Amino acid sequence: MAYLNDHYLKLKAGYLFPEIGRRVKAFTDGNPEAARRLIRCGIGDVTEPLPPAVIEALHRAVDEMAQRGSFRGYGPEQGYEFLRAAIARHDFRDKGLEIADDEIFVSDGSKCDCGNILDILGPQNKIAISDPVYPVYVDTNVMAGHTGAADETGAYAGLVYLPGTPANGFIPDPPVEAVDLIYLCSPNNPTGAAATRGQLSAWVDYARKHRAIILFDAAYEAYISDPAIPHSIYEIPGARECAIEFRSFSKNGGFTGLRCAFTVVPKSLLASTADGKFTPLHPLWHRRMSTKFNGVSYPVQRGAEALYSTEGQKQVRQLIDHYLGNAKVLLAGAKAAGLTVYGGVNAPYLWAQTPQGVTSWVAFDKILHQANVVITPGSGFGSKGEGYFRISAFNSRANAEEVARRLPALRW
Amino acid sequence: MAYLNDHYLKLKAGYLFPEIGRRVKAFTDGNPEAARRLIRCGIGDVTEPLPPAVIEALHRAVDEMAQRGSFRGYGPEQGYEFLRAAIARHDFRDKGLEIADDEIFVSDGSKCDCGNILDILGPQNKIAISDPVYPVYVDTNVMAGHTGAADETGAYAGLVYLPGTPANGFIPDPPVEAVDLIYLCSPNNPTGAAATRGQLSAWVDYARKHRAIILFDAAYEAYISDPAIPHSIYEIPGARECAIEFRSFSKNGGFTGLRCAFTVVPKSLLASTADGKFTPLHPLWHRRMSTKFNGVSYPVQRGAEALYSTEGQKQVRQLIDHYLGNAKVLLAGAKAAGLTVYGGVNAPYLWAQTPQGVTSWVAFDKILHQANVVITPGSGFGSKGEGYFRISAFNSRANAEEVARRLPALRW
Repeated sequence: MAYLNDHYLKLKAGYLFPEIGRRVKAFTDGNPEAARRLIRCGIGDVTEPLPPAVIEALHRAVDEMAQRGSFRGYGPEQGYEFLRAAIARHDFRDKGLEIADDEIFVSDGSKCDCGNILDILGPQNKIAISDPVYPVYVDTNVMAGHTGAADETGAYAGLVYLPGTPANGFIPDPPVEAVDLIYLCSPNNPTGAAATRGQLSAWVDYARKHRAIILFDAAYEAYISDPAIPHSIYEIPGARECAIEFRSFSKNGGFTGLRCAFTVVPKSLLASTADGKFTPLHPLWHRRMSTKFNGVSYPVQRGAEALYSTEGQKQVRQLIDHYLGNAKVLLAGAKAAGLTVYGGVNAPYLWAQTPQGVTSWVAFDKILHQANVVITPGSGFGSKGEGYFRISAFNSRANAEEVARRLPALRW
Repeated sequence: MAYLNDHYLKLKAGYLFPEIGRRVKAFTDGNPEAARRLIRCGIGDVTEPLPPAVIEALHRAVDEMAQRGSFRGYGPEQGYEFLRAAIARHDFRDKGLEIADDEIFVSDGSKCDCGNILDILGPQNKIAISDPVYPVYVDTNVMAGHTGAADETGAYAGLVYLPGTPANGFIPDPPVEAVDLIYLCSPNNPTGAAATRGQLSAWVDYARKHRAIILFDAAYEAYISDPAIPHSIYEIPGARECAIEFRSFSKNGGFTGLRCAFTVVPKSLLASTADGKFTPLHPLWHRRMSTKFNGVSYPVQRGAEALYSTEGQKQVRQLIDHYLGNAKVLLAGAKAAGLTVYGGVNAPYLWAQTPQGVTSWVAFDKILHQANVVITPGSGFGSKGEGYFRISAFNSRANAEEVARRLPALRW
């Protein structure tokens, strides 16, 4: 008799975005005028086309695949050397951070890696997660059996939730108790907050003291505009001994539909066996990727490589400037609407407080019905997200300006 | 203190192919003449370029990604409807097999899916695996903690090994004992054997009787040339209640470097909760893919769709005929060399018996040193692979002919 994984049955019914889709459809189906006016600032998906340097590299690689002499079959599961070397050099070594080419593992997405990393970690770990949080961190731990059931607020037994609040700038401090794995996302999805050097140093100190591991999600690092904010956890001394970093080409190169990301696993990072022997994680992740993955599509890896060319870097900069320009426009609009609003400076997300007594789903409905704008209700990111909503800056400038005009007209 | 997953430490040191690579390098480094003559019939990777229909579709999709109006960001995690519909119609419904579009889950590889499927299955399952076998089935179960340690033959405690031998045509019969999950691969990697309708029916009967699940790997189905051999497990009545099927575009369309595959999870397939309630697996796999995966690269999905066009179908047929033509040539060569050899008719692999007293690694070394041909030693696929080696037909015709000429000159 075949058994299923019972832990899946603990998952709450819906992922956030299907519910948003359902409400938007119900509203627009009966309202063609609103459907026409609808502007989506919900899901964090890029809207601008791929940079020309990427398009050229993709075409070239596709042509290579059309000729026997240049055709490529299975590539290295960890990524082609040309891409691992480009990443390690441009994103790390050129910035003074000692990361070797073979500490870079190319994958098809940070979402995948953030989930898959649990494969190589033991079930005994005590796990700390910020609240609000990217739901994938929580759900993948539920699936892996690292939690009990959810309570009525949606919080799962066994996880240590670390509240992100205006008081701590939405970057939680290390807890007093000992935890073993810590998810940190900076710049943060959903709050748009970016951890300062001091905050990250406190976490690295904590992790080294407790021999804990930081799972550092830096998918939005390209949006950092404050020069004092670290782009990588490895800017903090000691992080090579306690942190795995996740990066993505989704939000800088616009690869959400193309699929390419990478994870840094330093060889100096150790974790304990059940009997207390500290052992490097690098060979485990290498084995995991060799066995359960087959590498990223070759043309896509050539596309990612092109992001590091001189032209590619300029084009990425233009994309980031475009989205950050939107964020600035939206920030002004939200403030003009009288909202208390965070983020939008080092991240493509604004985190707005709902007016007193308005829940985040009520805010969602009001903004949808009155302004015909789709945002993301904060409670979808955890119980501490209640009372907030996320506005995404991924859009055209015209749409960002239009949203900024509509927000002040809202009647709460 | 962070813990690692101790089960990884049970894995045997090397995956098969790195060891092959090491021996080939050691031999050719000191022998430039042999290096020049070297022909690789080891790893099962395609050698011919992508079909023109795929190349055209890739270029078109890349151009779409260059324009704001046609750019695509995140796609559905389960695959675009255009591809799911093409698969369900051409591979199943047009052949009278009732598979719905949304029972198809598009992924970046069958290897990935074969490993990831364990995510949704419970740890209590008793697992049966043929021997010899594609190593990924075994290793992913070791990683998931479903086994004990390996013994000196490399067999892991807790797995039920089902020997594939000349007597059963390398397709094991169902065991007498009850097992819960069964891995079947047909046409088989490494033996090249294809399960008959009678053999598959016996397995479906067994699975239904024991409420077990068959994990059916049909990555090589396009190579079936005997019209009596089923291409899909769903050709067997009752299989919708007991089987998941894995398919790939790697070996028909030549997508090993492009990465696209799919898995069929029928909605009528149930598994038991820990407390004995039978529940559909389809929503669990849907949730797994939504949470831990982000869909296949858009241009690649368009490339896969093109395989189903009239031109694409013709071009795939040409590729298959090319590799099967190689298999025929190699089969004749192996027989001329006096070897007892199986497979090569419904699969791109030949499974040759080593002469009496010659182990499969000794055979590997002899063939490498004398014939300058790389094959795969059978023992790399499990203890019952000892005494055999696999010859891959993925090559140019000229190389296949040359290997066929060299084999009879071997001195054992």
